[in-house]
Amino acid sequence: MEDLYPSRVYDKPKIIKRKDPVLFSDPEKLNEGPLNQQQLHFYEKNGFLLLDHFFSLDEVNEIKKELDRVWDENKHNHSQEVIREPNSDEIRSIFDVHRKNELFHRLSQDPRITDRIEQILGSKIYVHQFRINYKPGFKGKEFYWHSDFETWHVEDGMPRMRAISCSILLTDNHSYNGPLMLIPGSHRYFVSCVGKTPKDHFKASLKKQEFGVPDNESLSWMTEQFGITTATAPAGSLLLFECNIMHGSNGNITPLPRSNVFFVYNSVENTLVQPFSGQSPRPDFLANRRVQTHAMQS
Amino acid sequence: MEDLYPSRVYDKPKIIKRKDPVLFSDPEKLNEGPLNQQQLHFYEKNGFLLLDHFFSLDEVNEIKKELDRVWDENKHNHSQEVIREPNSDEIRSIFDVHRKNELFHRLSQDPRITDRIEQILGSKIYVHQFRINYKPGFKGKEFYWHSDFETWHVEDGMPRMRAISCSILLTDNHSYNGPLMLIPGSHRYFVSCVGKTPKDHFKASLKKQEFGVPDNESLSWMTEQFGITTATAPAGSLLLFECNIMHGSNGNITPLPRSNVFFVYNSVENTLVQPFSGQSPRPDFLANRRVQTHAMQS
Repeated sequence: MEDLYPSRVYDKPKIIKRKDPVLFSDPEKLNEGPLNQQQLHFYEKNGFLLLDHFFSLDEVNEIKKELDRVWDENKHNHSQEVIREPNSDEIRSIFDVHRKNELFHRLSQDPRITDRIEQILGSKIYVHQFRINYKPGFKGKEFYWHSDFETWHVEDGMPRMRAISCSILLTDNHSYNGPLMLIPGSHRYFVSCVGKTPKDHFKASLKKQEFGVPDNESLSWMTEQFGITTATAPAGSLLLFECNIMHGSNGNITPLPRSNVFFVYNSVENTLVQPFSGQSPRPDFLANRRVQTHAMQS
Repeated sequence: MEDLYPSRVYDKPKIIKRKDPVLFSDPEKLNEGPLNQQQLHFYEKNGFLLLDHFFSLDEVNEIKKELDRVWDENKHNHSQEVIREPNSDEIRSIFDVHRKNELFHRLSQDPRITDRIEQILGSKIYVHQFRINYKPGFKGKEFYWHSDFETWHVEDGMPRMRAISCSILLTDNHSYNGPLMLIPGSHRYFVSCVGKTPKDHFKASLKKQEFGVPDNESLSWMTEQFGITTATAPAGSLLLFECNIMHGSNGNITPLPRSNVFFVYNSVENTLVQPFSGQSPRPDFLANRRVQTHAMQS
């Protein structure tokens, strides 16, 4: 399959224009909702959509309680789905919980979310990745700028930009406790990164990125063009963001932790092929390869 | 001299109520300006005051140009006034430039600033410390929570809370490029920190704090009581903040650097005595000991 978005192959960074639409449904289907025209237009232009108070406070509390429980349960679990902080034993993320946990499974199938995603992606969808995150207060570390799609394309073999990430905010995201920063509009450009991917580097990369890192010049250009938006919103809000939008977050020295549920939907017409790096695919908990309808499509 | 604010002496952290006023002038003098009643009230209550567009754009550009020049000039200067980043050779701060540089000397004596400081501190004042700071984009590191007074008291022998820090913002401070965070109202409480101060540790402490670090419980209490404010303002703004206010800043992964001129005025009635740690005083570029009118006062 042709590599429309080559990365980690050239000597120099390169900015490539997006070759995929952002809204995939035909106008009629788009008109049906549940997202309205204004929301769709905002998403198409900016590459993200923040829906305040999407979940009720009761729902948030229920999810938070379950997150705490799962956190406790995994304290001594050293399997690879449990990612810890770079310099401590503290858990940072737990992947794949929707396969083992009823509440998180239900969340991943919540029609309030999936209907909106299908409206944008114009097809049936499936869960590509699912994790719960906790960024502690006082010492939460930064997460450097990246496009998720760059990694999913190169390391997992996601062919096209036809996936959406969802983040359910479980704590208030202030400007000062390390909220997600997005470069609105950057989803329309693909930054081809420099540097080959070493084998099996994903274990380290989940703690600290070293490959697929965009260069300073491209980031400066994007920031000058589009500015930076911080996803500040109250607990219970839902953030949808396009798989190729440039995003990252600063550290968090405030006492206020941040936790969220993060999951990615991919179109069933965009299932994974062999990684474009030519290397072996990453494990299934990072990139769901069980859905294989891609062959049917082409 | 009695130690009104003991720190780094107890086994456990402790919160002590402030024993000094915040506004030192009598009402008549306060009424004379240049700060108006509303500004004075805000400062007394919150412990800081942000004066937007205090300097003109022309002035800012002149100062920035001089900062760049001084930066270049000191590239290979490895004297102790030049502080570098923890993990690189990049300069982070240069101290004491007002003694050698005409423009920065003039700034330190600017009556638009000194009149306001004297109005608050109710006496003649002198420069306790002066430095220029540069927080680079992409990799600017966090600066953890602290009260400046805690250090100046323990390590430099500043007896009372009667000093004010000034920061001239030379770049726009956004919420996302690591602006100063303040806990408004925290200047009315002194957090007595745990841990003895090792000898000559100041060289490391200018890069990364390890002593005089407030505990998590006190920080949580203060944040719950008072919240957090970020000093976001355009270039040219002047931030005044009380010597005991709790402040810090997160890292900065955005391409937008932050630079400022930072200096501290102390009351001539509050000059330095022997450090309350019982150790030798830190060098003069960190804490001006040349003004010695304190003996006259008592």
